[in-house]
Amino acid sequence: MISTPALCLEVGGTKIACGVVDSDGSAADVGSHTVTGRGGAAVTKIITLVRALQARHAVSHVGVAVPGPADQVRGVVLCALDLGWQALPLGGLLHTTLGQDVRLSNDGHAAAWAEHRFGAGRVRDLAVLVTIGTGVGGGTVVGDRPTKGHRGLGGEWGHLPLMPGGRRCECGATGCWERYANGSAFVAEARRCGWNSSEDVLAAAEAGDHRATQVVATVDGHLAHGLTILGACLAPEEIIVGGGLSCDPRFVGHVRRALAGFGTHPTRAEVTIRPAGLGARAGLLGAADLARSATLV
Amino acid sequence: MISTPALCLEVGGTKIACGVVDSDGSAADVGSHTVTGRGGAAVTKIITLVRALQARHAVSHVGVAVPGPADQVRGVVLCALDLGWQALPLGGLLHTTLGQDVRLSNDGHAAAWAEHRFGAGRVRDLAVLVTIGTGVGGGTVVGDRPTKGHRGLGGEWGHLPLMPGGRRCECGATGCWERYANGSAFVAEARRCGWNSSEDVLAAAEAGDHRATQVVATVDGHLAHGLTILGACLAPEEIIVGGGLSCDPRFVGHVRRALAGFGTHPTRAEVTIRPAGLGARAGLLGAADLARSATLV
Repeated sequence: MISTPALCLEVGGTKIACGVVDSDGSAADVGSHTVTGRGGAAVTKIITLVRALQARHAVSHVGVAVPGPADQVRGVVLCALDLGWQALPLGGLLHTTLGQDVRLSNDGHAAAWAEHRFGAGRVRDLAVLVTIGTGVGGGTVVGDRPTKGHRGLGGEWGHLPLMPGGRRCECGATGCWERYANGSAFVAEARRCGWNSSEDVLAAAEAGDHRATQVVATVDGHLAHGLTILGACLAPEEIIVGGGLSCDPRFVGHVRRALAGFGTHPTRAEVTIRPAGLGARAGLLGAADLARSATLV
Repeated sequence: MISTPALCLEVGGTKIACGVVDSDGSAADVGSHTVTGRGGAAVTKIITLVRALQARHAVSHVGVAVPGPADQVRGVVLCALDLGWQALPLGGLLHTTLGQDVRLSNDGHAAAWAEHRFGAGRVRDLAVLVTIGTGVGGGTVVGDRPTKGHRGLGGEWGHLPLMPGGRRCECGATGCWERYANGSAFVAEARRCGWNSSEDVLAAAEAGDHRATQVVATVDGHLAHGLTILGACLAPEEIIVGGGLSCDPRFVGHVRRALAGFGTHPTRAEVTIRPAGLGARAGLLGAADLARSATLV
């Protein structure tokens, strides 16, 4: 099989990861760079990073994963709140500057595709990845095809209305899932009760501390509530949980136990919860593989 | 094009509809029969109805839509609470008795497929149908393929946990969407405030009655909450609303207005709500077409 390396970037709210990824998912020249400033500053940084990698590697494709819904056909990022992007024609900007087609994808869709191709979801025909990070997002793969949803809006699960009328979200609505179940919500709940981090409170709960157990149970309950909704809406065989917290094996165990509180309907009982297999590189590997081979449907 | 009529049944909790449907969706010899008794009584009735239609028509395929998750590969109905069926090997029973393969499908999946092929969702590549009836269910069609989900559990949306800890559901959990948004919930809310039916309360609300407006707003709010969740989870271009209530044009208008209360995130703002196009025949037409032509994925 001929090797076809792809150049890829994953753009986050504060960092851009980049590298060159082969058809088998092996990565080289991987780096992480800080983004300072919003709007055009991040675009300039993307161009600089692509040019530097192009100078060092012969690549056939360029893929860029972005932290928001992306219309890959028109090359437009609908919105990326952390970067101050609204309806940004990033694909066209990069094509004009670099003289090369660039395939945009949503970071959650890219990570889900990578888990399906190279990670925890490899053998499944309906893979669902939920990423719990600064926000809550993800993607699905149906029958070996990555899905993007209408206008690239698939996987925007952080904005499902868990508690209408509750905490205000930056999207303008109230009660969005990610306001109750993202990394910050866990850290805030931990600090409110005297711990410094989610790791500390998980360790204290493990050691039998009653208040720590309650903090963990509260956040796990919100997480399990959203995961139960995803199970009922999508009916996947497995839900793969990614993002920072999923690296702690205690975390996935807690979520599994919290799910039991939502009853035994088959849409709960038949779904398996598993930690992601690729860690922080999933978005990068997926952006490369989508640029090279797959068409999002 | 050669005509290939299929014999089809849609089994409900109290009635079985049956008929013969052509490749173009035209139906003949359609009837509706009451089921008395649960368990084996419904199976006996199905066999009687198939034999009667077989005596009158030359058909190539037989399709049966059932009111619960169906494993079409193994021919097993996982559960159909209204009929008292649990892990019923209906496909095998019918094959043995009739000497013919029978394609099982979930009634919501069949109706969604029919709306995609012949009705309101015809031109869409991501069609989502929600049926609001005795229960709340439905199905999706992705990229011209009907989807069934793991073990046929797709479209079991009535059991998404809208209000954990709330009203008890017959599935054993609490707060399931269908306990707040099905036809009975609407009628119960109307009767509690002095009206006899959902039609009466919709008419009174239309005429400006304050209490009727509140009753309608309460049920519409629960419906819109669940539809907003479906929008965020599935990212469809359209959600087609079927079932008894959808036949009242006021109803869909009310739901559209209630959706506006859930914010302007693109997963709400970009989704169109439309009434179903096929009325009560959707399940029958879908069961026929799935038996004839399509493989659920």
